[in-house]
Amino acid sequence: MPTLYLLPNLLDNSQDHHAFFPSTVDTIVANLGGLIAETEKEARRYLKRFVFLAPKTFRDVPILLLNEHTTALQKEELVETIAKSPAPWGLISDCGLACLADPGADIVLQAKKKGIQIEACVGPSSIVLALMLSGLGGQRFIFHGYLPREEKLLMEKLKQMTTSSQKEYTHLFIETPYRNQKLFKQLCTTLPNQSWLSIACNLTSDQQWVKTDRIAQWKKEQPLFDKLPAVFVVRND
Amino acid sequence: MPTLYLLPNLLDNSQDHHAFFPSTVDTIVANLGGLIAETEKEARRYLKRFVFLAPKTFRDVPILLLNEHTTALQKEELVETIAKSPAPWGLISDCGLACLADPGADIVLQAKKKGIQIEACVGPSSIVLALMLSGLGGQRFIFHGYLPREEKLLMEKLKQMTTSSQKEYTHLFIETPYRNQKLFKQLCTTLPNQSWLSIACNLTSDQQWVKTDRIAQWKKEQPLFDKLPAVFVVRND
Repeated sequence: MPTLYLLPNLLDNSQDHHAFFPSTVDTIVANLGGLIAETEKEARRYLKRFVFLAPKTFRDVPILLLNEHTTALQKEELVETIAKSPAPWGLISDCGLACLADPGADIVLQAKKKGIQIEACVGPSSIVLALMLSGLGGQRFIFHGYLPREEKLLMEKLKQMTTSSQKEYTHLFIETPYRNQKLFKQLCTTLPNQSWLSIACNLTSDQQWVKTDRIAQWKKEQPLFDKLPAVFVVRND
Repeated sequence: MPTLYLLPNLLDNSQDHHAFFPSTVDTIVANLGGLIAETEKEARRYLKRFVFLAPKTFRDVPILLLNEHTTALQKEELVETIAKSPAPWGLISDCGLACLADPGADIVLQAKKKGIQIEACVGPSSIVLALMLSGLGGQRFIFHGYLPREEKLLMEKLKQMTTSSQKEYTHLFIETPYRNQKLFKQLCTTLPNQSWLSIACNLTSDQQWVKTDRIAQWKKEQPLFDKLPAVFVVRND
């Protein structure tokens, strides 16, 4: 049966993948018929980590791209390629888990329709790690992706998070790293003083830090995380 | 520095943990000073999987319980114990990742206040796997935990999911397994025909199945998943 593996990628490329992936991923990648990735460069870097059975090398694994430039027709061809392949294909995103906080789900849905079996692998997710490490509760949570940038819409969104129907949820969101400091300031001016904010920065890297405090406290000490990857976690109850 | 590891547990206990945990978890568990778990039985079963350096065995790891019976005072004592321990402690829930779709976050917050370092490990999460395998998109999502059981409240909640502000989110929820069929019927009668529903059942087990279809289609073929663990995924756009 044709198979597509949703594979994990590292959050920090300088790390050894064995510390973050189960060993089953090594076996799966070694036997791939091809890999779908956002960029050729990241795909090659990824494959290079794994050991293939000689004479096969990481250079012999075909790569197809799936990103914002991929057309509907190309997606169909992609699914056709997997459906016809005698060996399973893999799908990675540039960072973390495929299809989580990332596009790619439409390929999964199309592949399912074509009778391709989908298998998801365990791996690191910055959202999941930030939620666990925040201490702010993971019994109910919302991942918003990026918040609106337009001041008024952002304020509305943050206000929504303090309403009774959303108060029992932990809220997670991300921002383009160079806008971290700006978003942090907006959170401080918009969220109530007693709201909890956790910032998880550089997750899984040697420079990882996670800090959880009330907004009132955050106002007194501004974090330095300009241009560093971060996940924001907010709780209002 | 005193450390608390948020450890993964399996979703299906009959499986080999090496297929789902990175090998770092083996090293961490072998060196634990103690384990916090929901039940003594699950904690022993968990520890038994790992290899300890003789003469230490899985029976020598102290276990402390954290569940709905744990008082505030006991939680404080628990954190004190970790703070004083020369070896790191671990925290597991009965299934999946600690602190995700599970209590335990208050211990993390208290431990952080006491200067205990928190480390989160990679492992299987039924929510994350269900979301990836659904094909319904993980760029924005809400995990609701259990939906309200009271008919009127449930209908309100499901209606909320179809509103414009929640339409761009993928919705995940769980139910006590013996109520799966009932919830399924309620979803079919309440959600619009064109809504997507994915059901992920028995995840990571040999009997795993994931099916994604529109409500109109689900109405024609009722799934059989009475008393089996399942995650529901809904998308309304």
